[in-house]
Formats: sequence, structure tokens, C-alpha cells
Amino acid sequence: MSDHVYKKIELVGSSPNGMEDAVKNALARAKKTVRNMRWFEVAETRGYLEEGIIAHWQVTLKVGFTLDD
Amino acid sequence: MSDHVYKKIELVGSSPNGMEDAVKNALARAKKTVRNMRWFEVAETRGYLEEGIIAHWQVTLKVGFTLDD
Amino acid sequence: MSDHVYKKIELVGSSPNGMEDAVKNALARAKKTVRNMRWFEVAETRGYLEEGIIAHWQVTLKVGFTLDD
Amino acid sequence: MSDHVYKKIELVGSSPNGMEDAVKNALARAKKTVRNMRWFEVAETRGYLEEGIIAHWQVTLKVGFTLDD
Amino acid sequence: MSDHVYKKIELVGSSPNGMEDAVKNALARAKKTVRNMRWFEVAETRGYLEEGIIAHWQVTLKVGFTLDD
Amino acid sequence: MSDHVYKKIELVGSSPNGMEDAVKNALARAKKTVRNMRWFEVAETRGYLEEGIIAHWQVTLKVGFTLDD
Amino acid sequence: MSDHVYKKIELVGSSPNGMEDAVKNALARAKKTVRNMRWFEVAETRGYLEEGIIAHWQVTLKVGFTLDD
Amino acid sequence: MSDHVYKKIELVGSSPNGMEDAVKNALARAKKTVRNMRWFEVAETRGYLEEGIIAHWQVTLKVGFTLDD
Amino acid sequence: MSDHVYKKIELVGSSPNGMEDAVKNALARAKKTVRNMRWFEVAETRGYLEEGIIAHWQVTLKVGFTLDD
Amino acid sequence: MSDHVYKKIELVGSSPNGMEDAVKNALARAKKTVRNMRWFEVAETRGYLEEGIIAHWQVTLKVGFTLDD
Amino acid sequence: MSDHVYKKIELVGSSPNGMEDAVKNALARAKKTVRNMRWFEVAETRGYLEEGIIAHWQVTLKVGFTLDD
Amino acid sequence: MSDHVYKKIELVGSSPNGMEDAVKNALARAKKTVRNMRWFEVAETRGYLEEGIIAHWQVTLKVGFTLDD
Repeated sequence: MSDHVYKKIELVGSSPNGMEDAVKNALARAKKTVRNMRWFEVAETRGYLEEGIIAHWQVTLKVGFTLDD
Repeated sequence: MSDHVYKKIELVGSSPNGMEDAVKNALARAKKTVRNMRWFEVAETRGYLEEGIIAHWQVTLKVGFTLDD
Repeated sequence: MSDHVYKKIELVGSSPNGMEDAVKNALARAKKTVRNMRWFEVAETRGYLEEGIIAHWQVTLKVGFTLDD
Repeated sequence: MSDHVYKKIELVGSSPNGMEDAVKNALARAKKTVRNMRWFEVAETRGYLEEGIIAHWQVTLKVGFTLDD
Repeated sequence: MSDHVYKKIELVGSSPNGMEDAVKNALARAKKTVRNMRWFEVAETRGYLEEGIIAHWQVTLKVGFTLDD
Repeated sequence: MSDHVYKKIELVGSSPNGMEDAVKNALARAKKTVRNMRWFEVAETRGYLEEGIIAHWQVTLKVGFTLDD
Repeated sequence: MSDHVYKKIELVGSSPNGMEDAVKNALARAKKTVRNMRWFEVAETRGYLEEGIIAHWQVTLKVGFTLDD
Repeated sequence: MSDHVYKKIELVGSSPNGMEDAVKNALARAKKTVRNMRWFEVAETRGYLEEGIIAHWQVTLKVGFTLDD
Repeated sequence: MSDHVYKKIELVGSSPNGMEDAVKNALARAKKTVRNMRWFEVAETRGYLEEGIIAHWQVTLKVGFTLDD
Repeated sequence: MSDHVYKKIELVGSSPNGMEDAVKNALARAKKTVRNMRWFEVAETRGYLEEGIIAHWQVTLKVGFTLDD
Repeated sequence: MSDHVYKKIELVGSSPNGMEDAVKNALARAKKTVRNMRWFEVAETRGYLEEGIIAHWQVTLKVGFTLDD
Repeated sequence: MSDHVYKKIELVGSSPNGMEDAVKNALARAKKTVRNMRWFEVAETRGYLEEGIIAHWQVTLKVGFTLDD
């Protein structure tokens, strides 16, 4: 691991089901174009309301991945 | 949305069941007196222990709502 | 001033014209129901885009006002 | 305590006598209109000077209180 | 409660199942050697990925406990 | 909106005319290659001086845009 | 001093009498088991209320002490 | 630029006209006694109200200047 | 007040007697060379220990003063 | 410089030799695909241990580069 | 790694030779009593001066280690 | 030390050789006009690039010195 260089990108995932699902949705989308994802960090959690009920959760996360040589 | 003015209030919700439930409890209580709630932001998550077991989770959140004209 | 107690509330103002206008819109709305407003602090500035153009600016501010005895 | 919902408000108290007195003044004023206050958190401490002498201390605090059902 | 002195320690718990489980794992381990745990505060949430899937969540928390006299 | 995943990028815009112009310049440049920009957040404001006069303002902002499926 | 290694621990002290007393109570308790304490840093000040009156102040502090060789 | 040493000072400028004018007023005053000012960073923006109207804006900024040899 | 420019300096005051005294000592020293001091902000509070007892408190504060024309 | 728009990306570099080497490794990798890099900001420094010895340092940095027209 | 629980402690290391040496000194001392150290995070860097020359560097770091079952 | 009052100033030092050298350069320049410097705190580390290579490091630091009576 001592030679690796990583890049971190910032994503926002959404889900009506909860925080963890919002994270998973962001990662599932990122996986389509980003290889070698290694870790994520939750930066912010919020949600949007309709008629006083949570319509969807929204989680901002940073995702780190290995840069290929 | 460009003409709206919002107010944000700070609430703390509790639940023995988990983080998301603590958020929902705070929103359910707020809904009794606050109209037009639009979003919330999670500010802090903590919990209280009894005999080393989580007795309840406690989440501090800010809730934004539209001010009526 | 040494005897006063102040309360601070958090508002979000919007305007298509810019940051300062967003602040003024929030204060104009607050003035309808809050007396003795003394100062504000800008907490966050953001904006929303439509077709890549700024549709409106949005400024979060805290407003301090004297509590009447 | 596991079912409670709390609201937090932000106050600024002043006193020529010191930090703790500024906190007490804010709480004494809040007590007139807020029931069931449970805790406070000191957010900021400052003071104003006249002729190089402290004219009054000023403490910003957040106060949490139980929302009645 | 006014005479108590508390100590806070920082732990990192892990779980493949989610955030709350990671907190519970840390507390279950701490309970083996720490008596009188009273509360915890979530400081950071992250996760590690394998093949683009969350292998485990990792939550950093501070735990407060009463110091015996 | 509940299914969307967003990406956030960080830009620095410059302008001799002021803060809002610096933001607009950054967005105008981003628009050439980024589709579906939805919002921005101002992260930092600074400026550079020549002979004690502001030569240009410089605003760091984060821009969020929808990731296409 | 150039060869020393210090450890910092986090404590919470309480007192009905005020902030400084809460710090002193935490240090008096720590002194029973920790040798060579050198400095402390105040991290957070809060208080708990009963009937709208401060029942006790609570100060979170970090304490640094020299590690014996 | 690699040999320069800079000093940063903190100023607060005021203006009834807006944020950018408050920055310019602070810089105009500083220019009377400080040579070789190179950049500034906006640290805080606030304003004071009279009768619910902004009487003046107030911007805290840090100014960096080259130290002469 | 709308035309004033202020400068802020950072001081550290010490006192064996407590926090407020440490602030006063810093201001008393500053008063010898700084005119027109208007306000201060407490930035950090710490203390140094000898034999487990507080030898002196140390408070870091920022002091704002009007710049003469 | 007043017309430039910059983009900032976040990288993590590693090295068994120290902090500065970790920064250089990240920049050397970035240089393969990013043109016109102008500055970097160190955001976080950490390291990983094997048998109590530092196996490699890890530095998170943000790198700013000019966007071509 | 998904089952591990880690504890983090805070140390301050010193060295007349530089930042990295101060980190190494703290880790060398910790190694005497702490097993299974896995990573560290640099929290703060400072130094002490004698006659205007750096007498020693001082680095505050958090060290994470695996808790044995 | 309990009677001392300190002042802190903010400097930015540069060096092509590395972080520690940038700190030393700032201190060497400050020593020409500031007496009784006692400690410094590193606030920010960045660097400037030319052709993708580090041209110079730049470290922002605060320096504390005793105010003479």
C-alpha cells in the first residue's frame, strides 16, 4: 500500500429508505465508471420532506480509489 | 423557489430503535406545530447507555421550513 | 447594552439578483414578525442553477434581536 | 428520556460582572417564556470595552428544552 | 450528577451490517473492561469497499463513563 | 429527485469586478464540459492586490451536478 | 522538555458553583491516578438546569501529562 | 516568490453599501500604513440593522503583505 | 460606526486566579500601547499545572480596536 | 491571472520516507494526466504502522490547476 | 478487518530535529506499553523557541490500535 | 510564567527545500524585529508548482512572543 496514490471524489446519494441506502446508491452509480474504489467517508447527512414526511434521505460522501499506474 | 424565505430550527429527537427513528420522532413532533417543513440536516448523533447497552439514540437536526407570506 | 438579552434565529433568504439581495429578502420577511433586530451573521452562501445559469442565490444568516423585558 | 423531543434556541446574555453572570442573565430572561429548560451549551464568549476596561461580558449559548406533547 | 467526573475514550467499531451495528460492536468490546459507560458521541463514519461493494462500515465514537471515587 | 446521484467538483473563479462575477466566470467555464449542473456552494472568498488595489477577486466554490444514468 | 512524550486524556468535570470549579473537580479526581499532569485545555462548557436554575456546570477538558520513561 | 516572508493582519471594514465596499474600505485604510499588500481572505461577514434595515455591512478579512528585508 | 475600520490582534493573558483575570491581565497590558480598544473574543482557554494544582490559567483572546484616521 | 478558472482535485500520496515524499509521489502521479498544476494544499497527514514502526506516511492534498479555455 | 475494534489515544511527541522525528519519538515511547498499533493521525504541529531558534518541534498525534479480544 | 502576556502574529514562510525550512525562514525574518519569541503553531501548509514540480513550499504559522513590561 505504501506506493499507492489515491484520488477522492465527492458524491451525493439519495434514497427514500434511509442513510445507508443513500450511500449504497451513490456507490452503485460510481461503480459504473470508477475502478478500484477502496473507502468512503460520510461528510453530511440531510433529507427532504413532503407533507412533513421524509421523502428521501441524502448523504454526501467522499470516495477514495487507487489511481492505476 | 427563488422568492422564498426559510427559517431553520434546531431539534433533538430520541429513539431506542436507532438513528433514523430518532430523526423521525423529532419530525413527527415538529409537524404538530410547524407547517411547510422542507428539509433537515443532521448535526450530531449520540446515544445514552444503561448497563453498557444503548438505551436510546439521540440525533440533533436542523429543520428548514418556508415562512408563509 | 450591558443588560440586554438577545435571541438569534436562523433564516435562509433567496434572490435571483445576488447575495446581498438574498440577505435583504430574508430580513424584509423577518421584519414582519420580529421587532428590535440588531445584527446578522452570514453563515453560508449557495445558489441554484438552471441550464447552467444562476437561477437564484441563497444565503443562510443568523439574525440577533433584543428580547423585550 | 428516550421518548422526548427537545428544541434548542440560541441566546446571548450580557453582564458587567463576568461570564457566568452573563449566562445566568440569559437564562433568567428565557425562563419567563420557556418552560422545561434542561441544559445549555456555551458557544462563544466575548466582551465590550470602554476606556480599555471591560464594560460587559457577552456569552452566546444554546438552550435545550423539552417540547410538551 | 453534579459531583461526577467522567472520562471519555475514543473507539472505532466495525461491522459489515451498517452504522448502528458498528457502534454496538465497539460498545460490546468496551463493556468488557470499562464500567459505568453513560453515553457516546458519533465522531466519524466511513466504510471500506471490496469490488465496489461495502465490505464493512467503520464508526469512530467517543464514550463517556463515570470515574469511580 | 429521490433516485438521483450527484457529483460535486471544486472550482476557483476569478474576476476583477467582484465576488458574484467570480462565481459566474467559474460556472461559465464549467458549463462547457459539465452537463446538468444543479447548485453551487461558496467555500472561500479571497482577492489579490496590486498597488494596494484589488486586482481580482477569487472565489472557491463546489458545484453539484446530476450524474446521467 | 525536548525529549518528553506526553499523553492527553479527556475528562468532564461538574460543579454547582461554576466553570472553574468544574475544571478543578475533574483535575482533583484525575490526580488520584495520574502523575505528572502538566496542562489542560478547555474543550466545551455546558450546564444542566432544574426549574430554570443552573443545577451544575459541566466542563470538558483535555489533560496532558508526561509519560514516565 | 520562493524567498518571501509574509505577515498577515486581521482587519474589519464597514460600509453601508455592501460587502465588497466594506472590504475596499478596510484595504484603503490599511494602505496608509502597510506597504506591499498582496492578498486578502474574507473570514466573516455580518451587518448591523436599524429599524430592520441594514445600516452597514461589516467584513472581517485577513490581509497578507511582503515583509521587506 | 458605519465608517470605521478595526484591527484585531491576538493576545494570551495569564493569571493564577482564573479565566476572567487572565483576560483582564491581557487587556491591562494591551492598554499601555493600544488606543480605542472596543471588544474582545475568547478563542481558547487552558491552564498549567504544578503538583496537580492549577498554577495559572491562560486565555487566548482577539482584541478589536478602531484605527485612527 | 484575473481571468483564470481553476479546478481543485483531492489526492492521497504515500511514501515510506516521510511527509514531503508522500506529497511528491501524489504530484508525480497526477502530472501524468493533469496539465497546468499550479498549487497544492495539505489537508491531512497520517501514517500506517507495522510492528510499531512507520511503514508509510500518507498525505491528503488538494491540487489546483488551470482549466484550459 | 471487519470485526476489529480499535482504540485511539492522543500523544504529543517532541524532537529538536523536526516534525517527523517528533512523531517517531511519540511512537517509540508508546510502543513500550501499547501493542498492535496500526495508524496515527497528525492533529497539530508546533514548536518552542530559544533565542529565536527552534529548540524543539512538538507534534500532537492520535494513535489507533487494535483491542485484543 | 503566570504573569506574562503574550502576543501572537501570523506569518507565511517559503522555501524550495521543504516544510521545516519554510518555517525557519519565517522565524529568521521575524527575529530581526521581534524579541522574546517563545513558540509557533503551524496553521496551514501549501506549495506552488512549476511544470508539475514543487517550486517552493509555503507554511502559515502563528508566532507567540512575550510582551515586555
